[in-house]
Amino acid sequence: MANEQPDMTLKAIGFVRNEIKQPIREGWEKVVSEVVVDESLSEALDGLEKFSHIIVIYWMHHLETSGALPCKVYPMGRWELPLVGLFATRSPNRPNPLGKATVRLLERQENVLKVEGLDAIDGTPVIDIKPYIPGYDSVADAKTAPWIINQ
Amino acid sequence: MANEQPDMTLKAIGFVRNEIKQPIREGWEKVVSEVVVDESLSEALDGLEKFSHIIVIYWMHHLETSGALPCKVYPMGRWELPLVGLFATRSPNRPNPLGKATVRLLERQENVLKVEGLDAIDGTPVIDIKPYIPGYDSVADAKTAPWIINQ
Repeated sequence: MANEQPDMTLKAIGFVRNEIKQPIREGWEKVVSEVVVDESLSEALDGLEKFSHIIVIYWMHHLETSGALPCKVYPMGRWELPLVGLFATRSPNRPNPLGKATVRLLERQENVLKVEGLDAIDGTPVIDIKPYIPGYDSVADAKTAPWIINQ
Repeated sequence: MANEQPDMTLKAIGFVRNEIKQPIREGWEKVVSEVVVDESLSEALDGLEKFSHIIVIYWMHHLETSGALPCKVYPMGRWELPLVGLFATRSPNRPNPLGKATVRLLERQENVLKVEGLDAIDGTPVIDIKPYIPGYDSVADAKTAPWIINQ
């Protein structure tokens, strides 16, 4: 099975519109963005406004993709923290530069979603939108590594 | 920005190994799977074992991709529920067939992660692995649509 490689090419379903033109390390919580979905998919958003929070999956298109990817990174770029495997962090430098954010849905106007807390810069291609479902997407008793500073 | 379409081709970083050969609608919670990561990326998992839960992003390769995608679907395939936009559901039939599951990490042995609750069939390509971070990935006061039956 593992050798049958399917074609896994993503199509943008929309893009992010906000005031953030360059990545910032902190302070995303209060950033308000618009997720502008392709008009042909406007109807596919019907009902989403009944959820207070949504999950946005996006493609971090601004990253340099040349050169080898290091397997180990400093969490949040902080050198005083231990060097750990990149999959043990949320570093954007990943084999597939996908971001996943859980954001508050403030408003929907046809094909445009106004959201709060999306940590993606202006122009970021959006790949998927899912409703946030407590219990499926959240864990009551999760433990994290000591280098994680809870939000 | 939106017109500069980057190449968004995914690379599998590994695949799922479990006993589930065909999709099932319910009963994933107790399914134990192995996420077999490419050996070249084994080091990139270092430190992940300090987290009790991880997020797995995977490509639902078993789906039929021919034909037009309906914009509206019945949540969980249940006809007694209202027809809603596909992005307001977790239906696998999406423009980009990406799944996102939050699962319990039972064990890590080098490049193999043993997890519980991954709703992906045997052979599913894995795209990304992220640590689950309470507060960033969870919401305390989320509201959902009435057709969502909490897990």
